[in-house]
Amino acid sequence: MNMPFDYSDKVKAMRPSIIRELLKQMADPTLISFAGGNPDPDAFPAQDIRRISDELLSGPPSGALQYSITEGWPGLRARGAAYLNARWDVVKDGDDTIVLSGSQQAMDLLSKLLCNDGDVVATEDPAFLGALNAFRSNGAKLVGVGLEADGVDLAALESMLSASPKPKFYYTIPNFQNPTGYTTSLEKRRAVYELCKKHRVPILEDNPYGELRFAGEELPPIKSFDDEGLVLYAASLSKIMAPGMRVALCTGPKELMAKMVVAKQGVDVHSSLWAQRVVERFYESCDFEAHIARLREVYGRKARLMMDCLDKKLAGGLSYVPVEGGMFLWAQLPEGVDMHTYVKKCLEHKLALVPGNAFFVDDAAPCQSMRMNFSAPAVEQIETGTDIMARVMDEMKP
Amino acid sequence: MNMPFDYSDKVKAMRPSIIRELLKQMADPTLISFAGGNPDPDAFPAQDIRRISDELLSGPPSGALQYSITEGWPGLRARGAAYLNARWDVVKDGDDTIVLSGSQQAMDLLSKLLCNDGDVVATEDPAFLGALNAFRSNGAKLVGVGLEADGVDLAALESMLSASPKPKFYYTIPNFQNPTGYTTSLEKRRAVYELCKKHRVPILEDNPYGELRFAGEELPPIKSFDDEGLVLYAASLSKIMAPGMRVALCTGPKELMAKMVVAKQGVDVHSSLWAQRVVERFYESCDFEAHIARLREVYGRKARLMMDCLDKKLAGGLSYVPVEGGMFLWAQLPEGVDMHTYVKKCLEHKLALVPGNAFFVDDAAPCQSMRMNFSAPAVEQIETGTDIMARVMDEMKP
Repeated sequence: MNMPFDYSDKVKAMRPSIIRELLKQMADPTLISFAGGNPDPDAFPAQDIRRISDELLSGPPSGALQYSITEGWPGLRARGAAYLNARWDVVKDGDDTIVLSGSQQAMDLLSKLLCNDGDVVATEDPAFLGALNAFRSNGAKLVGVGLEADGVDLAALESMLSASPKPKFYYTIPNFQNPTGYTTSLEKRRAVYELCKKHRVPILEDNPYGELRFAGEELPPIKSFDDEGLVLYAASLSKIMAPGMRVALCTGPKELMAKMVVAKQGVDVHSSLWAQRVVERFYESCDFEAHIARLREVYGRKARLMMDCLDKKLAGGLSYVPVEGGMFLWAQLPEGVDMHTYVKKCLEHKLALVPGNAFFVDDAAPCQSMRMNFSAPAVEQIETGTDIMARVMDEMKP
Repeated sequence: MNMPFDYSDKVKAMRPSIIRELLKQMADPTLISFAGGNPDPDAFPAQDIRRISDELLSGPPSGALQYSITEGWPGLRARGAAYLNARWDVVKDGDDTIVLSGSQQAMDLLSKLLCNDGDVVATEDPAFLGALNAFRSNGAKLVGVGLEADGVDLAALESMLSASPKPKFYYTIPNFQNPTGYTTSLEKRRAVYELCKKHRVPILEDNPYGELRFAGEELPPIKSFDDEGLVLYAASLSKIMAPGMRVALCTGPKELMAKMVVAKQGVDVHSSLWAQRVVERFYESCDFEAHIARLREVYGRKARLMMDCLDKKLAGGLSYVPVEGGMFLWAQLPEGVDMHTYVKKCLEHKLALVPGNAFFVDDAAPCQSMRMNFSAPAVEQIETGTDIMARVMDEMKP
C-alpha cells in the first residue's frame, strides 16, 4: 500500500533550512563552520543557571515541573516587561507581555493568527530563513522588500504596503539583521513605522541580537514609537541566556496577545516551566548589566578579528559592510567569481559558508553573497577559515 | 486608530480552553478542583531530575544549553524508541522516532501538514479539547464519531471514513481517554485499524495515559498493528516524567516524520535540550519499571477512592463507567438534574468540575456529563469534594 498522507498546500511551500541541514552533515570535527547561527557557548551564564536550577529543583516539585499557564509564569512576565522597558519605552499601556518557546514561535503564531491560505506577508529581503518558513507554513505568500545597509528600501516598502492585496503584516529585524548584519537607521525606523501606520499594516519586530551591540550607538526599537498598537515585538533570550532553554518574551497589543495565548494553547500548552523560572531568578539574583557587558566583549572581539582577517587577507576580493553587533557578516564576491562554486570549493577545503541566495524570497535569483557567522567559531578557526577563503579566492579570481 | 489586526478564519474557529480558563480563576486556595488535568506532582521523579540536571549543568555548557537539531537529541531518540518497543512492537521498520515539545505538538504539526482550510478531521466525540483546538487552528473542520465505553461506534466511524470529503486523519486516545476515561477494547482497536486501512485514512493515536494502568490487562496500541505506515503515535512524557519539561516522543512513517521535522523547524526550532537530556539520562540511570509501578500505585489509590466515594455518597444519583487507569472519570447526571446548574452550584460550594459539553465537537448540544479528575486533588479533597457533590445532588434531585 502506498502512503495515505496527502500534504497540505502550505507545507508544499516549505523547505528544510539549508543551514540546519548543513549542520547535520558537520559531524566532521576538522570542518570549520562560518555557516551556523549558534551563540558562543562560553558566553552562556552556565554557572548561574546551574546554581539557580539546583535551588529550584530542591523546592516543591510543582515549582518547576508541573503544567503551568499558557501566557507564561507571572513572575517572568513581570520581570521580563521591566527588562524590556529598562532602556526604551517598549511595553506600552495597552500592551501585554507573554512568554513564548523561543521567538520562532512569535513568527508561527502571528502568521497563523492573521493569514488565510494565500494571504501576503511582506518581509525584508534577504531575511531570516526560519521566519520565512514559519510564514509559509501557515499559508502565507511572501513578498520581499529590498534591504540596504541602513535598512529597507522605503520606496519599495511603500509600494508593497499600498499593493492589493495588502500584506497582513511586515517582518523586520532592525538590529544586526540575519543574514546581513545590517542595522536600520533611526530615520528609517521612524519612516517604516509611519508608512505601516499610514497603510494600517502591523509590524512584527524581531530583536534577537539587540543586546549584542559592541560598537556604535544604541537605537530605539520601532516598538518604542508605537502609540497605535501596531507592533508585535519579539525578544529572544537565546543569545542573552541560552538557546537550548527555548524561552522568549513577546509584547504587543492586549487583544492580539489574548488571541496568541489561545493559539499557543493548541501548539505547545506552555513553555518549559523550568526554563521560565530559571530566567526569572536570573533577573532577580544576577547582575544583568555585567552579564551583557561580558557578552558584548566576547562578540566584539570575534567580529573585529573576522573583519580584520578579511581586510588583510581578502582586500579587493571580498566586500562587506562592517557590523556593530550581532553574529553575522554579509560578504559579497566580486563579479566573475561564481558564489556557489566558491562555497563548494571552501567546503572541499573544510570551511562551511552559507550561500546567500538561501535567505531571499526568490532563492533562484542570481546572488553573489554569503553569510558568515563569527559568534560560534573559535579565534583560531576564524584565522584558519579566512586563510581558506583567501586561498580559494586566489584560485578563482579571474 | 482602531487595531489593524484582521484575523484568519481558522483562528475565529478556536476557543480558549474552558479548563485552562477555569484554572486561572482558581487562585482561591479553599477551592477544590476536580476540573484540572494535572498529574500528581508527588509522582514526579523530582529527586532524580534534580540530580541529573546538576550533573548535566556541571558539564560543558553546550551539552544542555546550546541550539540542537530539530528532530531531537540522538540519544533520547534511540532510548525513547527502545522504551516504546519494550512491551509492544510500536516502532516499525519504516518508522522514525522524533522528540516533540509535548504531544500537543503532534496535533498541531499533523493537522498543519495535512489540512488545507476547510479539510475534515474525524475524532472520537467527546475528545481532548486541546487536540480539537489544534486541528481547528490549522483550518480543519471537525466531524465527531460517538464514543462508547469500549471504544468508538464502528458503524459511525465507517460512515465518516467513507463520506466525501474523506477525513484527512482520524484522532483517537485508546487508553483511558480524555475526558471519558474509556478504554478501547482489543476488538475495536483492530476494527478501527482495519477500517482506516480500508479507507486509506491515517490515524493519530495519542497515548498520554497508557502507562497509568492500575487494574485490568494491558492492551496493544493500534500502532502495533501498523504494517502499512498508517499510524502516527504520540507518546507524551508529561505523566511519566513531568509536564513542565514539555517533552514527548512521536513515531511514524519516515516520510511523514521528515515533513514533521521541517514543520517543527518553523514552529520552535527544537525542544528544550535540557529536558531532552534529563529524560535521556533518566532512562539510562534510573529504574524505569519501579518508577512506573509507583505511579500506578499512586493513581490507582486515588481513582479507587473517588469511585468508592461516588458509590457510597451518590449511589442512584450519579453514574459512571469504572476506570482501570488514567486521570479522569466521566460522570452522568440523572435526567431532571440540569448539568450546568449542578456544576454552577458545586462551584458555589467551592468545588470545580468541567461541564462535559466542552469536549464535544458540537458543544451546544444537550449534555448530562461532567469530567472529574482524580490525579491532582489530595485524598482529603476527594473526600470533601464528593461530599459537596452529594449535598448539591440532594438539593437538586427532583
